[in-house]
Formats: sequence, structure tokens, C-alpha cells
Amino acid sequence: MSGHFSEDTSAETVNARIGAEADARLAEVMRALVRHLHDFIKDVHLTQAEWEAAIGFLTRTGQICDDTRQEFILLSDVLGASMLVDAINNRRPPGATENTVLGPFHVDGAPRYEMGTDISLDGGGERCLFEGRVLTLDGTPVEGATLDVWCDNEDGFYDVQQPGLQPAFNNRGVFTTGADGHYRFRGIRPVSYPIPDDGPVGQLLAGLGRHPYRPAHMHFIVSAEGYETVVTHSFVAGDAYLSSDAVFGVKSSLIASFEPMDEGETRWRSEFDFVLVPSGPV
Amino acid sequence: MSGHFSEDTSAETVNARIGAEADARLAEVMRALVRHLHDFIKDVHLTQAEWEAAIGFLTRTGQICDDTRQEFILLSDVLGASMLVDAINNRRPPGATENTVLGPFHVDGAPRYEMGTDISLDGGGERCLFEGRVLTLDGTPVEGATLDVWCDNEDGFYDVQQPGLQPAFNNRGVFTTGADGHYRFRGIRPVSYPIPDDGPVGQLLAGLGRHPYRPAHMHFIVSAEGYETVVTHSFVAGDAYLSSDAVFGVKSSLIASFEPMDEGETRWRSEFDFVLVPSGPV
Repeated sequence: MSGHFSEDTSAETVNARIGAEADARLAEVMRALVRHLHDFIKDVHLTQAEWEAAIGFLTRTGQICDDTRQEFILLSDVLGASMLVDAINNRRPPGATENTVLGPFHVDGAPRYEMGTDISLDGGGERCLFEGRVLTLDGTPVEGATLDVWCDNEDGFYDVQQPGLQPAFNNRGVFTTGADGHYRFRGIRPVSYPIPDDGPVGQLLAGLGRHPYRPAHMHFIVSAEGYETVVTHSFVAGDAYLSSDAVFGVKSSLIASFEPMDEGETRWRSEFDFVLVPSGPV
Repeated sequence: MSGHFSEDTSAETVNARIGAEADARLAEVMRALVRHLHDFIKDVHLTQAEWEAAIGFLTRTGQICDDTRQEFILLSDVLGASMLVDAINNRRPPGATENTVLGPFHVDGAPRYEMGTDISLDGGGERCLFEGRVLTLDGTPVEGATLDVWCDNEDGFYDVQQPGLQPAFNNRGVFTTGADGHYRFRGIRPVSYPIPDDGPVGQLLAGLGRHPYRPAHMHFIVSAEGYETVVTHSFVAGDAYLSSDAVFGVKSSLIASFEPMDEGETRWRSEFDFVLVPSGPV
């Protein structure tokens, strides 16, 4: 145990340095990180030039971040890491609504509306009725469930991406179910859009021959006292990017029908039920 | 092959997206990166809060970088990744001088001196004579070998860390061997010093119960026509940090004796030979 470096025992040498006073969980996470990092470098026989390219990429990724742009989250997203963290922390029994990524565009404080209200404030897009029920696993309606919903506008931008250009809280609203567990609101049929691709992550996607698009989706956070909160989307069935979401957010159970309808200005109807599981000791 | 995400096949789903037009080596490296990243997340069951902490850490690491500070290299160094990349790209036969990390403080254009010159220009520190030979594996002296040498001053800072406070090219010089392969110069006995620890990497080290110190060392780049260039240090035998170098740069073969001597102002003598291997097709 000289503590000196050798190629064969590289990860063990690094991990043996961790002090007894280190937080146990931090030590566990870092030990695994070092082991996988060293295995990765050995597996691909990383060259000095590639290491330099990686240092440059990570530095540019950090430096493009600001108050409204988080390029490391984007990197995590396109590598499937965000979805994986979401998945392993939100395992649910069959029949329960699955989670997907929160994404960077949720904002607190959206208006609370009566059921049936139209959340689209800018007049653009194809009008769509969203409705369904919030249920327990055995089909009982959940009263007092809150649905926090948001989506992009007809041009593929969330209101927070276009301050001044879109009305505040455009395509956002909060609804609460009554005794029948039913929800119902109007908005627009969401459209697919590219994640920001003018930075290092966009360059990486291009280098890998990948496009930056997400399939059209409506975001939902569904919460109710005594139940696990569900952070998810409903995806528009038939979207061209359903099988190639740039951030891997799609799960088969989250694809929702969007049926044509003709009621006043409303051209589409999407029905999607949410099934909650009790919260509490796992 | 729906392209939809599932916990079990997460890495495969991400890697299946790589396009046929992607550069083959980039695709190979990224496939392995995604595989190890997903295995790491699963192995430690990374929580959402830990993922957020990681995003914040990487962002701060990128944002502290500037023209003179490279925190991602520091991060790579303290995780042993820099040494591992150096090791797998510089494998040499037994008896040949081993590489170690270049470090961030080398500068091109140091003065070329006659053998015997003192490279320490600020008058501080304990005077030391450095000498030895540049040889081939069979002991033949190498004529015309260039030694580019640099070290910190008595306070543990390189000249480039203290512009204006230290003379330009303090503790730096370039020497060329004659027919006997011998080198000889004067300087100071180097001192141990902490890597910059006032940023995210310093906080990580503290959290892991690790100190930020490097054992005292003299840097060498030894090059000669027809031979592999050696980037290495000689470490001061007996240094308190030899077994716990913060960047894992120490190899047993690189520890050099520093013997007391009393010749004019010179108080120490360090002898260290370099053994080169022919360059060419591997």
C-alpha cells in the first residue's frame, strides 16, 4: 500500500485515499464513479488528445450556462441519464401512471382555473380539449387531486423562453378535481420542438448523427394528499419523433390519443387517465 | 425496437440512436461512456437530489475556469483520470524512465542555459545541484538530448502563478547534453504545495477527507531525436506527501535521492538518470 499510481490498480489507489471522516454516502458514490470512470478510460483506451477534447467540451458546457440555460441538464438529458435517474426513483406497480422527466420549463404559481378553462392565451395553435380522470389502482376517483399542466405554443416555445413575446402563463394552468375525479380543460394541441442545439450539446448530437427534437407533449404534475406525486407527459399519438425523443422521455403507456372533434373552435380531443399509488413507507 | 425508454435497456436505447454517419471513434467512445454512466447511476441508485447536486457541481466547475485556471483538469487530476490517460498512452519497457503528468505550469520558451547554470532567479530556497545522465536502455549516453526543467519556488508557487512577484522564467531552464549524455544544473530543492483548493474541486477533496498537497518535485521533459519524449518529475525522497499526492503523480521509480552537500551556497545534491526508448512504429 504505497499509495503510488499504477495502471492496474488505478481506481483502488484513488479510492483508498478517501478519509474515514468522509460522509459515507458521498464516499460510496465517489468510489463507484472513480471505478466506472477508470474502466471507461481503459475500455476505450482514451488518447491524450481525446482527453483534452473532453476537458474542452465540459468547460464550454459549464460556461454557456446562465440563469435561463442549463447545458449540463441538457447533456444529462441527451445521454439518457436524466430519464434513468427519474426511472429508478419512481418505480411503480403495473397500472399506475409512469413518470417522465420534469424538464426545465415548469414554473410555480400558474393560475388556478375552473374546469373547462382554456389555458392558451395567445390565440395561436389548434384548439384541443383535454379530459380524463384521476383514479386509484382499483378505479376509485380521487377527489381534490391537483393537476399542474403546461405545454409549448404553436411555434414550439414555452412562455418562459419568449418573455414579452408570449402572455405570462400562456399554456399553463392548475386544476383541482371534484368528487368524480374528473378533469377537463382546453388548450392547444402541442407541437414537437428542438431542444436548444446551438451549444456544445447540440454539437455532440450533430456529431452522433442525432436530431434535437422532442415529440409533442402536454406536461402534467398530478398530486393528491396521500398519493405519490406523478411528474409526467401525455404524448401526441402519431408524432414523427415518438420513437426518437432527443431526451428519451417517451414511455409507451404515456402516448395519448388525440381524436378530431368539431365543437365550437375545438378541433381535437385528448383523453388520458391518471392512476395514482398511495404514498408512504416503501 | 420502439426506441422508448425502459430502466433495463436504458443504455442500449440511448446508444441505438447513434446515426450511421457518426464518426466511428466518437461513436465507440460515447457508447462506452453511456454504458458506464448508466451502470454507475444504477450501481449507486443515484437519487434525484444527488443528480441535482452533480449538475450544480459540474456547472460551478465550468464557471470557475478562465485563462489561468482549469478546474476540469484539476477534477480529472484528483480523480486519477489524468494519470490513467498518461499511463495507458505511455507504456514503456522495464528500465525505461516512466512518465507522469505534465501539469498546468509548463511554459514554452524558457531560457537555454549552459550546463551548471542556476535556474533559480529570486534568491529564495535551499540551493541544490541536479545532475545525472540521459541514457539508452543498454546504457549508451544520448548526445543532444534536451532537458526542459521547471519547479516551484520556496513558497510553493510557480512563476506563472505570481506574475510580477517572481522574475520571468524563475526556476525554469532548457539544457542540452553533450557526447557524455551528462546534465548538470543548479536550482532550489523544490517544496510541496497545495493544488488550488478554493473552488469546487477543493470542496470535493475536503468532503472526501483528502488533503490538496503534492509532494515536492522537479519537472522534466526529456527529448532526443529518435527517442520517445519523456514527460516526468523527479520527486524529493522523504517528502511527507509521497504516498498521498493529491493528483497521484508519484511512481516509485521517480523518487530521487536528495543528499546534503556543502559546496559554496549549494546545500543539496540530487542525482537522477533518464533512460529513453527509441520512438517509431509501435
